[in-house]
Amino acid sequence: MSTSPEVSAGTYQRARRPEQKLERRDAILGAARELALRDGVRTVSLADIAARVGIHKSALLRYFETREQIFLELTAQAWREWVTALHAELDPAAPGTGELGTGEPGRAESGVGGSGTGGSGTGAAALVADVFARSFGDRPLLCDLIAHTPLNLERNVSPEAVRRYKLTSLGAVGEAAAIVRHALPGLTPAECTEFVAAMASLAGALWQIANPGPALAALYASDPDLAGACVDLAPRLRRTAEILLAGLAPSRS
Amino acid sequence: MSTSPEVSAGTYQRARRPEQKLERRDAILGAARELALRDGVRTVSLADIAARVGIHKSALLRYFETREQIFLELTAQAWREWVTALHAELDPAAPGTGELGTGEPGRAESGVGGSGTGGSGTGAAALVADVFARSFGDRPLLCDLIAHTPLNLERNVSPEAVRRYKLTSLGAVGEAAAIVRHALPGLTPAECTEFVAAMASLAGALWQIANPGPALAALYASDPDLAGACVDLAPRLRRTAEILLAGLAPSRS
Repeated sequence: MSTSPEVSAGTYQRARRPEQKLERRDAILGAARELALRDGVRTVSLADIAARVGIHKSALLRYFETREQIFLELTAQAWREWVTALHAELDPAAPGTGELGTGEPGRAESGVGGSGTGGSGTGAAALVADVFARSFGDRPLLCDLIAHTPLNLERNVSPEAVRRYKLTSLGAVGEAAAIVRHALPGLTPAECTEFVAAMASLAGALWQIANPGPALAALYASDPDLAGACVDLAPRLRRTAEILLAGLAPSRS
Repeated sequence: MSTSPEVSAGTYQRARRPEQKLERRDAILGAARELALRDGVRTVSLADIAARVGIHKSALLRYFETREQIFLELTAQAWREWVTALHAELDPAAPGTGELGTGEPGRAESGVGGSGTGGSGTGAAALVADVFARSFGDRPLLCDLIAHTPLNLERNVSPEAVRRYKLTSLGAVGEAAAIVRHALPGLTPAECTEFVAAMASLAGALWQIANPGPALAALYASDPDLAGACVDLAPRLRRTAEILLAGLAPSRS
């Protein structure tokens, strides 16, 4: 099957048994992940992924509809892994249980709450801001994928594939909102969802600015008039999270 | 020169005089603008633009380096038009003068300020939030372009083109921040810049979510589990602006 010049002929046979097919599917996702981390999501083509796995493009299309479906599946995986990490950092007692939404809020030392003032970023709000900033700052692939999802990935897959993806991403956002509410019980569920959604959108947009191409990076390095346009991702996200958490309760109508 | 099947031969001659060249350049930008507004920035190719103008692709490349340079030039134009509109709405006395940064803050009835509380979204903060939300909500092309800029447009043009663009966009953000400070003198210049930058990034990201492709739009319409994932752009931006403005002063460290 191998026609790619990068692959020694005969390394791969056509996968016939179910477990072989799952293995092949994982290999495709793994190759796409590696290439996207190295070169950025935008530059990775279906042909690149097929060459990396060592199969022909037509063989790859037996597993995924399009390049975009591969990346949408990686995005779904990245959301699940992200929300598991949030559980571990903000709610160590219930990692990955997903039961927070119905449980009792557990941290009363909130820096944001019914009192209507946000404080100066200390306490639970500062912890939430820091954990969220790092949760995106430490996950370059998730951030890159978030920006590509509504622009490209969701626009070039079947309705069923986008539906599966949406249920996963909405589930992760809902679970993350429940984790925030557990830490900051003075916020409403809708406010926690607003916070998570805004942070995720900003993480996607700001990651692209924080990781310019070679020409723009050289320009930033050489031109003091432009250096201010670059962004340091985690500190910027931390500050924005602090502002949002401090503003949610006081701006209630 | 016309080889496109969509153009009657002889409609266009090669532009030789400077004013003809400027006209041709404007026609290219106008065609790109119309197509992007109709179909979305991501789908418009260099060949589409050339066909719309009625010139061959090779003729178009005498005016612009790449498809991305055309859209980067449209983005620069859109930023300038946007900041002129902000002046008109928030500082009618000095539309487009760009002198606000050094002038005296003029509105003392601020809802956000040194007192450290944001109020409930009334007064000057509510006005700023509303004007910013509409400034993006009424400009679909600007929003679409903002998302594409760091992802694509800035990565496929010459260093000189990206430098010119950056100076324009940074100028617009700086001018907008000065307008915000004029309306809300209790905020620092850095806080006003933070507000403008966050709003612009969110406008780009949320516009993409608010304007899904046909398959996803149909899914939103048919599936109540997913309807919540869609976004109504201007109301969402207004609410986020209120939260940010209410949180900036209280979250100062």
